[in-house]
Amino acid sequence: MPSPFDSRAFRRALGNFATGVTVITAADADGHKVGVTANSFNSVSLDPPLILWSIDKRSSSHAVFERAGHFAVNVLAADQIDLSNTFARPSDDRFAGIEHCLGEGGAPLLADCAARFRCETFQQLDGGDHWILIGKVLAFDDLGRAPLLYHQGGYCMVLAHTRMAPSQGGSYLQGRLQHNLYYLMTQALRSYQAGYQPQQLATGLRTSEARLLMVLEHDAGLALPELLREVAMPEREVAEAIDSLSRKGLVADDNGRVCLTEAGREQTEGLWGIAQARQEAVFGGFSVEQMEAFKAVLRAIPFKVG
Amino acid sequence: MPSPFDSRAFRRALGNFATGVTVITAADADGHKVGVTANSFNSVSLDPPLILWSIDKRSSSHAVFERAGHFAVNVLAADQIDLSNTFARPSDDRFAGIEHCLGEGGAPLLADCAARFRCETFQQLDGGDHWILIGKVLAFDDLGRAPLLYHQGGYCMVLAHTRMAPSQGGSYLQGRLQHNLYYLMTQALRSYQAGYQPQQLATGLRTSEARLLMVLEHDAGLALPELLREVAMPEREVAEAIDSLSRKGLVADDNGRVCLTEAGREQTEGLWGIAQARQEAVFGGFSVEQMEAFKAVLRAIPFKVG
Repeated sequence: MPSPFDSRAFRRALGNFATGVTVITAADADGHKVGVTANSFNSVSLDPPLILWSIDKRSSSHAVFERAGHFAVNVLAADQIDLSNTFARPSDDRFAGIEHCLGEGGAPLLADCAARFRCETFQQLDGGDHWILIGKVLAFDDLGRAPLLYHQGGYCMVLAHTRMAPSQGGSYLQGRLQHNLYYLMTQALRSYQAGYQPQQLATGLRTSEARLLMVLEHDAGLALPELLREVAMPEREVAEAIDSLSRKGLVADDNGRVCLTEAGREQTEGLWGIAQARQEAVFGGFSVEQMEAFKAVLRAIPFKVG
Repeated sequence: MPSPFDSRAFRRALGNFATGVTVITAADADGHKVGVTANSFNSVSLDPPLILWSIDKRSSSHAVFERAGHFAVNVLAADQIDLSNTFARPSDDRFAGIEHCLGEGGAPLLADCAARFRCETFQQLDGGDHWILIGKVLAFDDLGRAPLLYHQGGYCMVLAHTRMAPSQGGSYLQGRLQHNLYYLMTQALRSYQAGYQPQQLATGLRTSEARLLMVLEHDAGLALPELLREVAMPEREVAEAIDSLSRKGLVADDNGRVCLTEAGREQTEGLWGIAQARQEAVFGGFSVEQMEAFKAVLRAIPFKVG
């Protein structure tokens, strides 16, 4: 028999399966609204139209979901990290200041999502430490916005998988693509990522841990609220990454600020070194002037969230 | 009561929830192996360690999964589109020529995935036109490779959600990031995507349909095998997009080749026009020479899949 394993490592392994992020909402008979961030959503059946998700048995919101005849699934768009964090965090009124209307059974429908599914509660099944909730979809909104993703403990976005290889050069399409900046930048990023990630993993750090180290200021450290603002990760993942980095002796608490230790500074320099080496491998053939001109164009692109 | 809705539109709306892609495998007592591509995988419980996925009740592989005491979940990496397509397509032996070893119960474990979960069959539940299969995880491999994604009918990759805004300029990190090409390109792509996608959606085309139109050669059209090779989409989605574009009169069959109609050519020009306008909005402030130098750098980056 295989030996039992530690559930932290299991959760990390599960993080390799990327998912969208949803906020699932309901209301009780008094109109008291609940909402929880969940990435366990998935489709089950087209006919009848069924979807499922699962909720921690310890969740204080579960009682409302169990009794409610309806719930709504809000699939978050790429610029809705704050919503994801709000509904993942304990709060008396998570809906305060959040634009929404009410769907079937008073379940809140959030504005500006990628899609929304309005469901009738269909079945609740036992799933170990979670309840599996199956909903029958009554209506939906297909808003098509770019989605927020969750992968290896951090928030991400989708990057189109343009498969076309330059070997087909000479075609009309290839000619067009050679002048399409979106295509060219996508290809460049893919090439860059392909070489970077394995080297980062070889350090033994998770992506979320590496991200956190690289965000921490070299000297001053960051208080938790600053850290949460700077790093695109859910609070729970930030807490877990800090925990893990502390155990490894890479960060330490300094009066409520998370600081790099000496070992942490070295490790972080190592990560920047990997990034630098990758950059040189990909762009090393160009002159300093060419690269400065290249960066100048990139830096001048208007920054826009989402 | 809300009115019933068409299941094609429902499936499209579900496509807004991005997921990873898995190949789930098992073997019967005679060692006959089955494997199916599924994106309905998700985690359920940490303790006990449970995961679930669902399989079409019409699937010929289901009988093996139902009787097998074990199955394996192979989470595909970004460069495994071919595996995804192979296991989504009818075939006598999907494992021919595919590197794998055997896990518990003879369930095939594929090489070079992002993660693998070796499961004991725990429970099978009725889920409308699918069976929901729950597995208890006995062991797993956390290989951490960049994952393959599925979103709105097409394959994608993850793009890190670097949230840090340039308003924090002056910090040590910001100084570093201004020279980090990965960061600069990521920001540029985000800015580009944010403006492009809403305009593409305003044409009434799904992302997969727009992608297909833009891949079709201007004049000659493409036979289905060529089309499948050029476009990063599952066969089923390609078929559905062709169907939908035919109904709209944008493509037509010409002796087994999918061709743009006159209206299709116009629509496709419209899409390239949107791309061009977006490009000008983002990069319009640069001179022709600056942009040519910029493109020259991008084009020279070694192309690498995955």
